[in-house]
Amino acid sequence: MSAKKPLNIGMIGYGFMGRAHSNAYAKVNHFFHDLAHKPVLKAVCARNKEKAQAFADAWGYESVETDWRQLIARDDIDAIDISAPNNVHREIALEAAKAGKMILCEKPLAMNAQEGEEMVQAVEKAGVANTVWYNYRRVPAITLAKNLIEEGKLGRIFHYRTLFLQDFTISEDLPQGGPGLWRLDASVAGSGVTGDLLAHNIDTAMWLNGALAEVSAMTETFVKERQHVDTGQKQPVRIDDAAAFMARFDNGALATFEATRFARGHKAYYTLEINGEHASIFWDLHDLHRLSYFDHRDASNVRGWRSIHVTDGEHPYMDKWWVPGLQIGYEHTFVHQVADFLKCLETGEPCRPNFRDALETQYVCDAVLASAKSRAWTPCKK
Amino acid sequence: MSAKKPLNIGMIGYGFMGRAHSNAYAKVNHFFHDLAHKPVLKAVCARNKEKAQAFADAWGYESVETDWRQLIARDDIDAIDISAPNNVHREIALEAAKAGKMILCEKPLAMNAQEGEEMVQAVEKAGVANTVWYNYRRVPAITLAKNLIEEGKLGRIFHYRTLFLQDFTISEDLPQGGPGLWRLDASVAGSGVTGDLLAHNIDTAMWLNGALAEVSAMTETFVKERQHVDTGQKQPVRIDDAAAFMARFDNGALATFEATRFARGHKAYYTLEINGEHASIFWDLHDLHRLSYFDHRDASNVRGWRSIHVTDGEHPYMDKWWVPGLQIGYEHTFVHQVADFLKCLETGEPCRPNFRDALETQYVCDAVLASAKSRAWTPCKK
Amino acid sequence: MSAKKPLNIGMIGYGFMGRAHSNAYAKVNHFFHDLAHKPVLKAVCARNKEKAQAFADAWGYESVETDWRQLIARDDIDAIDISAPNNVHREIALEAAKAGKMILCEKPLAMNAQEGEEMVQAVEKAGVANTVWYNYRRVPAITLAKNLIEEGKLGRIFHYRTLFLQDFTISEDLPQGGPGLWRLDASVAGSGVTGDLLAHNIDTAMWLNGALAEVSAMTETFVKERQHVDTGQKQPVRIDDAAAFMARFDNGALATFEATRFARGHKAYYTLEINGEHASIFWDLHDLHRLSYFDHRDASNVRGWRSIHVTDGEHPYMDKWWVPGLQIGYEHTFVHQVADFLKCLETGEPCRPNFRDALETQYVCDAVLASAKSRAWTPCKK
Amino acid sequence: MSAKKPLNIGMIGYGFMGRAHSNAYAKVNHFFHDLAHKPVLKAVCARNKEKAQAFADAWGYESVETDWRQLIARDDIDAIDISAPNNVHREIALEAAKAGKMILCEKPLAMNAQEGEEMVQAVEKAGVANTVWYNYRRVPAITLAKNLIEEGKLGRIFHYRTLFLQDFTISEDLPQGGPGLWRLDASVAGSGVTGDLLAHNIDTAMWLNGALAEVSAMTETFVKERQHVDTGQKQPVRIDDAAAFMARFDNGALATFEATRFARGHKAYYTLEINGEHASIFWDLHDLHRLSYFDHRDASNVRGWRSIHVTDGEHPYMDKWWVPGLQIGYEHTFVHQVADFLKCLETGEPCRPNFRDALETQYVCDAVLASAKSRAWTPCKK
Repeated sequence: MSAKKPLNIGMIGYGFMGRAHSNAYAKVNHFFHDLAHKPVLKAVCARNKEKAQAFADAWGYESVETDWRQLIARDDIDAIDISAPNNVHREIALEAAKAGKMILCEKPLAMNAQEGEEMVQAVEKAGVANTVWYNYRRVPAITLAKNLIEEGKLGRIFHYRTLFLQDFTISEDLPQGGPGLWRLDASVAGSGVTGDLLAHNIDTAMWLNGALAEVSAMTETFVKERQHVDTGQKQPVRIDDAAAFMARFDNGALATFEATRFARGHKAYYTLEINGEHASIFWDLHDLHRLSYFDHRDASNVRGWRSIHVTDGEHPYMDKWWVPGLQIGYEHTFVHQVADFLKCLETGEPCRPNFRDALETQYVCDAVLASAKSRAWTPCKK
Repeated sequence: MSAKKPLNIGMIGYGFMGRAHSNAYAKVNHFFHDLAHKPVLKAVCARNKEKAQAFADAWGYESVETDWRQLIARDDIDAIDISAPNNVHREIALEAAKAGKMILCEKPLAMNAQEGEEMVQAVEKAGVANTVWYNYRRVPAITLAKNLIEEGKLGRIFHYRTLFLQDFTISEDLPQGGPGLWRLDASVAGSGVTGDLLAHNIDTAMWLNGALAEVSAMTETFVKERQHVDTGQKQPVRIDDAAAFMARFDNGALATFEATRFARGHKAYYTLEINGEHASIFWDLHDLHRLSYFDHRDASNVRGWRSIHVTDGEHPYMDKWWVPGLQIGYEHTFVHQVADFLKCLETGEPCRPNFRDALETQYVCDAVLASAKSRAWTPCKK
Repeated sequence: MSAKKPLNIGMIGYGFMGRAHSNAYAKVNHFFHDLAHKPVLKAVCARNKEKAQAFADAWGYESVETDWRQLIARDDIDAIDISAPNNVHREIALEAAKAGKMILCEKPLAMNAQEGEEMVQAVEKAGVANTVWYNYRRVPAITLAKNLIEEGKLGRIFHYRTLFLQDFTISEDLPQGGPGLWRLDASVAGSGVTGDLLAHNIDTAMWLNGALAEVSAMTETFVKERQHVDTGQKQPVRIDDAAAFMARFDNGALATFEATRFARGHKAYYTLEINGEHASIFWDLHDLHRLSYFDHRDASNVRGWRSIHVTDGEHPYMDKWWVPGLQIGYEHTFVHQVADFLKCLETGEPCRPNFRDALETQYVCDAVLASAKSRAWTPCKK
Repeated sequence: MSAKKPLNIGMIGYGFMGRAHSNAYAKVNHFFHDLAHKPVLKAVCARNKEKAQAFADAWGYESVETDWRQLIARDDIDAIDISAPNNVHREIALEAAKAGKMILCEKPLAMNAQEGEEMVQAVEKAGVANTVWYNYRRVPAITLAKNLIEEGKLGRIFHYRTLFLQDFTISEDLPQGGPGLWRLDASVAGSGVTGDLLAHNIDTAMWLNGALAEVSAMTETFVKERQHVDTGQKQPVRIDDAAAFMARFDNGALATFEATRFARGHKAYYTLEINGEHASIFWDLHDLHRLSYFDHRDASNVRGWRSIHVTDGEHPYMDKWWVPGLQIGYEHTFVHQVADFLKCLETGEPCRPNFRDALETQYVCDAVLASAKSRAWTPCKK
């Protein structure tokens, strides 16, 4: 282990994503043995020192900071992990890039595409390694889907269909703002389900099926006012509770996308289905270890949707884990992304999706919100 | 049985729907014992006499006709069943209404709403019993869904989401026109998946969740030219191979609809999902005897989607059939519609969906096709 | 249709099975067009004349009888359908055979193997066509399984595993005897779940995987006393509420069988799974239109259980029904058996399972009951 | 973190279980914050020093040993983790107990019950904390099942039905002995699927439904000879490739158990179903994050099996992990067991299953093997 080069991590944020990323840094070398680097949990930064310290204690961070500029300024930090809310991504990223730090930024990249463009310019000018945590690309079942598509198993793609359904904001008593609920506050989150959920659908979709050409969208805010935790007052809700759009891909495929936090019975039901000339694929996050696959080339009397239990050694990433039949879970997608990020440090390749890739997703998100407003088909900037 | 009043049926058409309807007439009194009427298979009509005779032999029709005007003119016919292609619905219906015959018309009602309006006027003016075979309302699981909604189990509805996926026209070698494939010929079918498949989704949706206000649609014809069976020539395909639309219901719910014949792996995958404030429902035609139901009011640690095997005596229509656990199938939906039609003859109630209901669906179909062309949100005429 | 030879049916019984068989006779020629014969519903026989007449009215039987000996004596009857309880099968069958009538007997063949042996002797001596309604062989998915096994797709068979789970007798208030509940009265039913449910599992198993060599069984009667409808008194329950057994097939495969009426949540959950060297099969009656199939020879990264929707034209029997994706149900298995019976009349082949096949199943049932009593491994007589 | 008391772990073995346990020790304090102790990876022991060192490097063990007696003798070791093959469990446990070390022993406890009795005596005499890694008790879905049973949700239990199906030893070319395959060598493993797989089924079953009274079993060795890696020669295979048994619980419930490595299509398909008077439960390891639950007390028209996605904060252990809808996997069951073990150190409670509990399972395993040999019902020693 002494042979591994340390990669000193400076973590900003200690919430849900702070935990998910920290777990990935702590765990990656236990399972991925051929990496040259080893993340070191150097410092965690949060305005609340006590909470930062508690987080540092739980995860073994060596030190805490309360000012992220201070963190970035430290010589013993190699990489900045942005796990803070959306409204500070840009500022932190610009500063970190200027300081020559690598950046691992939680998604969505930014509040909007304009911010995103600045961020891309900053990291590209600085030449620092950068990646955005669209972690679902690294679900083994989705990586397998990508491989099948690249091998041509599906042939020409006709349809792409994807949902992200939740039900946790149906109650009108839920406030906007505060821990876990800043996503309801447009000034912090930028948008509602579009940036939070659809962004995932869009990133995966463009990875699997190429760029989107144009969209026609609708959005809805079912609960018009919610108490704001800062003011204690009822204030208009300015995020989208639900969003749906139709689209056309550059390759001619038709698409439907939908995300909502008002679909009773669904917690994190992210699904995708792709229909090709020869074969089709279906996946959902509630059983993330399975991929459904239909191949029309199977003998006709035994054709059927196959439920592939993606836990064999030859499935993507799975040789690192347990034995066939034993599931991994949500958190492992982050471990995979760290492993790939570290491997990219060795090869010099970009670790996709990088800021530029994430900007493409941001362009589509912006087009969705614009189309919902204008009620017109809207091209996706590229 | 002697006590039953005969209802003499004149069937026009001997194809897939001719069989489905004939089976329903033949079978209904075997299982529904409290009906005052009994359908009698009096005559079947088709241009090809030999085929008409073979059909009559198989099903026990007493006579055959080769001219539908002749059939309508017969005094011994009480009801005309229109199981012929879409392009002759209007003409037959107008004539039948004028002759004072009851009409049971295969869906969609007409080639377009204009024709539909004429047909509604005709039957209403003539005061004849009329119904349209949107048979899926009578899948017991869907009737159960309707009952649950009416009991208020779902509360306010936020989302409606429905698909109808097939894959049988992917091959470019399939011709347009001819037995089974007239649906690819716009001059006979009127439209493609919009009238053939989406019409079902729309009828069910409006039955369950009320009227649709406006739509934004896209359509696609993946195979641009197909040989026409009449000419032997490659001709442009003028029907929609795929259609998708977003919509808003009058009650404020958001909706997405999609139908295609290019979804590899799906044969007749009609699905619907409704998300309400308290509960949600999912159903699909590939397992039509099941209804999935999620009720948020269940104790929180044992909440989950329930897979209701809709085969108990207390489920809609199921007291007429076998015992719990034993499935019925597709054909039974038609038996149910005949049973309901006969019951309506006793009560004088309209047998829904009647022509007027089916016209509402036609308005939405027309709006879908118009929106796909104009690329604009389009209101649904009512 | 005039060309069809009539096969005059004399039906004994008007209960659940009387309906299922009558439906099959009434319907078979509507869908199976290449048959030389056509069943004619000549007479139904039951002790209660009023009920017999009501049944005749519903189904179109031409006449009624109240004494089955009278029915058998009629010259205008070709075939006797035994849909009466188990305790009269033997007597009726012996008489019918003596009179030279064909016999279609509901399962199980008899109260026990001794009765069954007499019945086999009788029909074989008389040389009359005979069949037993083990209808599940004719579920298209199970026939498909049979075909796959015969093609060698599974290779050597290692395991057979089958259940038949119900929950309808858990309540202690349920009486023994009377309509629908004679199955709880050992003097009428012979045994409990062994003859009622396991008999189905055994018939299918031996059809698919050959003869059973030996069994080790246990049975249980959870409710020890129930009111008897004849006496109004609480009387000991002498049937088995649940039965399970382990077995070895002649081909070396291991097996487990279990049936019960005390499995809460299951209505008619008949399942079977077969594990072979190369492939495995799973089927269950609650989704009878599906066959699950796993083929180890599939490319290793896309191996998975396939859910085959057995509704295509090339699937067994399915060319007679609707179009791909549209389910048939329970009742169709009886139609298939009638169709095969009629076809056998043309070819002179026995219509399997015939009385002799059903006797093999009876031997296994007897071995199961004997083993449960002796608590010892017991060979199956052949 | 400084406040946590270190618990110095001495790990024996570096295989699959060595990794699973090490991961649990490394991870537990990241997610379970209220524990007084913190495991420290002090030393790993294996005969092959190089491999031990590589394992130590990957996991951060501070030192390596090549003689487990040396490891046990070290003063700086608090707890011995026995992750070595079955044939050395006894010897190590006796020595560790004598040295006053806590013991965390991989299952099955021993080669047979006689060894197990010695081990129980040793730890009880020494008064050292002890636990056996029957990890499936700590799948949140199974813990939830336990809770539901204890709350009386199921009522009287009628049936227990459990499988553990694999397919990895079908090939005759697989040798016995060597890395990963010592389980095929009876001198190292003690038995085949009985100790490896059924032991899990039995432990869970007795935890959920109480003690087993008696069993009737059969076993089979499909491949009679395999090359042994030590000798290079074909040698008789003395383990059971498959085992099935019927049983009765002390509470009167009937049971069937089956395990095999010859069920094509199954990797680690451990299932269990329990049928009670009021409700039933089903679970399987291939979707370990779900529990199926049927409650007869639900309103009758919406009764159905519920698929509970066991990922909510109120589900057992799940408040420690992510958010609703996001799965954990196989490895987390070990983290839960370490967390519970550490909590028991605080309370002084035994960490179940301890050696005594595991001995009960060993008694049943021995009864199964004895019954298969004697072909007789065999009582389970207690």
